[in-house]
Amino acid sequence: MSSSYNGGINISLFGESHGKGIGVVLDNLPAGEEIDLDKIAAFMARRAPKKDGTSTTRSEKDVPEILSGIYEGKTTGTPLAAVIFNTDQHSGDYGNISHIARPAHADYTGFLRYKGANDPRGGGHFSGRITAPLCFAGAVCAQILERRGITVGAHIKSIKNVCDESFDPVNVTAKQLESVKTRAFPVISDTAETQMREVIANARENLDSVGGIVECAAVGFPAGIGSPMLDGLENIISQLVFAIPAVKGIEFGNGFSCAELFGSENNDDFTVINGEILTKTNNHGGILGGISSGMPIIFRAAFKPTPSISRPQNSVDFKENVQRLLAIKGRHDPCVVPRAVPCVEAAMNIALLSALLRDPKI
Amino acid sequence: MSSSYNGGINISLFGESHGKGIGVVLDNLPAGEEIDLDKIAAFMARRAPKKDGTSTTRSEKDVPEILSGIYEGKTTGTPLAAVIFNTDQHSGDYGNISHIARPAHADYTGFLRYKGANDPRGGGHFSGRITAPLCFAGAVCAQILERRGITVGAHIKSIKNVCDESFDPVNVTAKQLESVKTRAFPVISDTAETQMREVIANARENLDSVGGIVECAAVGFPAGIGSPMLDGLENIISQLVFAIPAVKGIEFGNGFSCAELFGSENNDDFTVINGEILTKTNNHGGILGGISSGMPIIFRAAFKPTPSISRPQNSVDFKENVQRLLAIKGRHDPCVVPRAVPCVEAAMNIALLSALLRDPKI
Amino acid sequence: MSSSYNGGINISLFGESHGKGIGVVLDNLPAGEEIDLDKIAAFMARRAPKKDGTSTTRSEKDVPEILSGIYEGKTTGTPLAAVIFNTDQHSGDYGNISHIARPAHADYTGFLRYKGANDPRGGGHFSGRITAPLCFAGAVCAQILERRGITVGAHIKSIKNVCDESFDPVNVTAKQLESVKTRAFPVISDTAETQMREVIANARENLDSVGGIVECAAVGFPAGIGSPMLDGLENIISQLVFAIPAVKGIEFGNGFSCAELFGSENNDDFTVINGEILTKTNNHGGILGGISSGMPIIFRAAFKPTPSISRPQNSVDFKENVQRLLAIKGRHDPCVVPRAVPCVEAAMNIALLSALLRDPKI
Amino acid sequence: MSSSYNGGINISLFGESHGKGIGVVLDNLPAGEEIDLDKIAAFMARRAPKKDGTSTTRSEKDVPEILSGIYEGKTTGTPLAAVIFNTDQHSGDYGNISHIARPAHADYTGFLRYKGANDPRGGGHFSGRITAPLCFAGAVCAQILERRGITVGAHIKSIKNVCDESFDPVNVTAKQLESVKTRAFPVISDTAETQMREVIANARENLDSVGGIVECAAVGFPAGIGSPMLDGLENIISQLVFAIPAVKGIEFGNGFSCAELFGSENNDDFTVINGEILTKTNNHGGILGGISSGMPIIFRAAFKPTPSISRPQNSVDFKENVQRLLAIKGRHDPCVVPRAVPCVEAAMNIALLSALLRDPKI
Repeated sequence: MSSSYNGGINISLFGESHGKGIGVVLDNLPAGEEIDLDKIAAFMARRAPKKDGTSTTRSEKDVPEILSGIYEGKTTGTPLAAVIFNTDQHSGDYGNISHIARPAHADYTGFLRYKGANDPRGGGHFSGRITAPLCFAGAVCAQILERRGITVGAHIKSIKNVCDESFDPVNVTAKQLESVKTRAFPVISDTAETQMREVIANARENLDSVGGIVECAAVGFPAGIGSPMLDGLENIISQLVFAIPAVKGIEFGNGFSCAELFGSENNDDFTVINGEILTKTNNHGGILGGISSGMPIIFRAAFKPTPSISRPQNSVDFKENVQRLLAIKGRHDPCVVPRAVPCVEAAMNIALLSALLRDPKI
Repeated sequence: MSSSYNGGINISLFGESHGKGIGVVLDNLPAGEEIDLDKIAAFMARRAPKKDGTSTTRSEKDVPEILSGIYEGKTTGTPLAAVIFNTDQHSGDYGNISHIARPAHADYTGFLRYKGANDPRGGGHFSGRITAPLCFAGAVCAQILERRGITVGAHIKSIKNVCDESFDPVNVTAKQLESVKTRAFPVISDTAETQMREVIANARENLDSVGGIVECAAVGFPAGIGSPMLDGLENIISQLVFAIPAVKGIEFGNGFSCAELFGSENNDDFTVINGEILTKTNNHGGILGGISSGMPIIFRAAFKPTPSISRPQNSVDFKENVQRLLAIKGRHDPCVVPRAVPCVEAAMNIALLSALLRDPKI
Repeated sequence: MSSSYNGGINISLFGESHGKGIGVVLDNLPAGEEIDLDKIAAFMARRAPKKDGTSTTRSEKDVPEILSGIYEGKTTGTPLAAVIFNTDQHSGDYGNISHIARPAHADYTGFLRYKGANDPRGGGHFSGRITAPLCFAGAVCAQILERRGITVGAHIKSIKNVCDESFDPVNVTAKQLESVKTRAFPVISDTAETQMREVIANARENLDSVGGIVECAAVGFPAGIGSPMLDGLENIISQLVFAIPAVKGIEFGNGFSCAELFGSENNDDFTVINGEILTKTNNHGGILGGISSGMPIIFRAAFKPTPSISRPQNSVDFKENVQRLLAIKGRHDPCVVPRAVPCVEAAMNIALLSALLRDPKI
Repeated sequence: MSSSYNGGINISLFGESHGKGIGVVLDNLPAGEEIDLDKIAAFMARRAPKKDGTSTTRSEKDVPEILSGIYEGKTTGTPLAAVIFNTDQHSGDYGNISHIARPAHADYTGFLRYKGANDPRGGGHFSGRITAPLCFAGAVCAQILERRGITVGAHIKSIKNVCDESFDPVNVTAKQLESVKTRAFPVISDTAETQMREVIANARENLDSVGGIVECAAVGFPAGIGSPMLDGLENIISQLVFAIPAVKGIEFGNGFSCAELFGSENNDDFTVINGEILTKTNNHGGILGGISSGMPIIFRAAFKPTPSISRPQNSVDFKENVQRLLAIKGRHDPCVVPRAVPCVEAAMNIALLSALLRDPKI
């Protein structure tokens, strides 16, 4: 289903950018799990627009109102629904371009798919705003995972050609993952931050945008969870990560680089440390045959540059089938990557909890 | 479900490498579709081991026996089941290593997941052999798509550091896609073939293996098919492609490279040619907002080097939790990539037919 | 998933009786369908408590607020979410009995299922109130079906031992189905209404409750929709109808009576009338092999008497595992059947639209 | 999907009556479960045609060949596939009637649904033969349930107007359920057997057929399993039971009778016996709010008379749209009910194991 995920948990996302509200229903959550709303707010705040020039100047409060599924601070086990009412809407900004396809946006494909009936304002259901309820869902799952010793974290691996350090695929810790979350700009290296901010600032000044890569890791996830073939961790995670608009690639472990290695280089030797079976290296990214190995789970997702740029672009009016020059107004992120970091974590948290719940324990 | 895909069509894969048989059930196929069994055999032959040194010397006849779902040469519309009986089994080759984890294989994770009860012979259900029924399923879907003017094809984009040319993302044609399928070694450039064969031969001689990248394209797929968020073309394709063992990454359009571009470089301008809306470039890989744009759909999948290498490797006995030196015997592919090409096409064909069937026409 | 249905359309219900709100997300609706909100209100009003003594005296306004999925009066094709905010809550009425199991209610089973964490107020997610969003979903689907000439209607077939006439299984018309909907008490026969009202009034006076049977029919549904085995119309309809609390049985066509017939009596002869293939009788209820025959689709659902009665009952405190006498306070329906009529229609509308959407047209 | 069930376990049924083979794939079974093939054979033998005049004289050996999923006598946890090769086929018997709709059969509806491409021989995929793999699947699940102290059994409750005793809804035991299985004619009362056999014999002599009711019970199923709304035990069981051709109704507990009771009569008082919470009566059939109460789970399914009767019947040629007289030849069951008993048990076993597996334990 278009905006639903049905795994161990069921996620049903809804909403349009300029409609009344956006939200999510989480079904099949375990019951009796304490949910700290402040932690959820903190998770979602990391997705909110920054006041530092790296993102849109729109103000998105994005306070989710929980309608069901939490009672006396704990999950009831029945569906948890949350809604974020849209408030700061400038529909007028979009009015005049509704039939001119913004390049790299889904205006034209959405028009075809929905026979012209979809809400075009601000991208409608295609808007990056729908990642707010995705983050909410991920933040709920994160707390359930954390209680079981599982921590998920992400950082900006690169923006354009500026790279951050990588998580150590063998030794990354929960503490390090948490530490990155406290930064206003989620990177490991201070130098990377400075350079990335510069790249973004330049793009903004040039009425342009830049893309980048987010790296995500999970530690503490038990070995033996997942499945071969079609319901493995890679399948689930990738299905969820591609729900984030602008993602165009995903790779696990050393990913595309492994294609350039010999087997003798890429294979991770197994070893026993303190009675525990581990691998010495972690090129496999913590997943073998779709199943967790007990090593950190690591993947990277590639984000394209924000499609909305203020430069004039060549496009078409898809109602009249004629070419048109397009000038996008409105407030846009020169780079979505910093705000995408918690979205990627959210997808990972949902995927991991879902896999845990699907493990056939009886 | 571990080996099932439930989209517009339902795929249920089964079988273990050294069990009695492997196969697949396809449910919800359209009825009355002519199925040419010779074409299916030709599709599957491209996956069969080659006699040219690039793959295992095992003989895998892999003739699928159709049990149901085809009547008088056409799909009945009720479930189509096919089985390939296993014949050429050398279980003895694997007997002595069943509790020593082969690095980069799923021996250890499978042992944990299935409490030691899974069939360990030849990798059991984790074996690359299960891609034979996947290819069968893909070959059936391919014929249904072709009747609607949709053609899927793939080639080896790279093996280790040797690259083939790329499909032209704007102008690739069905004819070109079909042309690559006729080659014993599925590449575009003759030079690439020579060099890749050399790289593989060297790896085999050195008791080593190499990985590579497969590029896949679809032409003729109608615009407007797919969905945003969780059931988009990228979500579906990636879920299916990760079913192929050894895949560690996937990217659509210009994929990871787009992370290094400006928006002004990456955005594909729309244009009108002969009354049809197209994009001038195709960095988006034919998918915007999870929905087809009418441009060729293009993705690349990264394959790790074959995990089975004949060199001694450090590993552990996961039953006794002690370190062991491992020497893998048996016949293995020094590089799975050439044989993976039709598997990738199969995943794409299944994904595209599924998306077509899921489009809500009433 | 517990409160989700995934067929041609996806329904995700949420909410607890005394929580902040209840609602539903409908995913995969066709786009561009006009939705008349007044008609939806009229549909839901039929489920609202009556002021005539047959139901609870609680006031349930139940005005659904649409958050997404409708734009300029039409479905966008992206998820349609609606919420009903709870207002008239008397939680105090339930406070003192929260660990004494109300017989025939789900207090005890829900306590076990959700480890005591579910919201116990007013039955929480088990409350009949959750049929309000089910009705909303059904009312949306009904309009989409009606545009295609398909009409669903239901009436009270019996309350306790008082029977209404039956829909004529061969000749029932859309007009008749619509006609019943206009009645405050949805029966065909005036006499039945009088007697049923009397039975209900007596039950209320005796601090007791009564059950009954709802009969539902659909006309105009095209022949050839559905599937054999597990996704047939009977499977889908029954899965959805059992979502209505208090349903304990369902039968199609002549149902349980057919078990007492000879084949020669039960078989419906086919005939051709005005070039159209029909059956002379309709014991099969419009479904053969899980697929519609073109005859009216007819089923009946049995409702148990309202579990909540004001008489003292023997029960247990399921936290202390001791026997307790229970006295239920609060306002309850002496008979849920009149209000269940639109709920049954809703389930049928959802099932039929889902089956239509799942028909593999490409 | 038409012949697939996706719950805690995934069932994919395939095959046509006169095709090469019929079978099933079970995905997501727990690993390491011993499977006794003799027990499976015994389960399926109860479905096989009897030599006593109550069923068809066709010989259906129906020995399932297991292709995957069992290794060294235990489930591997990966998909279990089994096939029954069709051998005793008399296609000629059906040849001349392939476009004349057999009343109460799916010939006409199947023709429409599958655009005339479905296999018409012997009913094709609509044949009762497909219940053989359903029984196989149920027999596998039964063994996994039995190991956890859960026993499912069924008996003929009635054939036409002859009734057997009922299972005691409170005190029925595993021993009694097993005892009925040992009888050639699965009833409780000897008198009922004599009279039912007579009714069937008379029907056969009169070239007619009779229907009946099967009652099914499960004991030992733990309390607290299932879910409210759409994934409750009643929803799951009914979805699976309606997969059995000829079922036209299902009721749980006292079912349709409860519609005629007062709440004070129908409500089951709770009590504590030996520290365990039970109900004194079991009108609710062991399910409250979709969740098991710990009492025996009880339902009844109504079967229509075998549609195939040897009397001439009025029908139509659905290709030529003209009326035709139909004379069915071939060997048919004058009553499917005795052979349906294990099919009903199979559906129940699959449903209960699926619900157990779906319970969110983490």
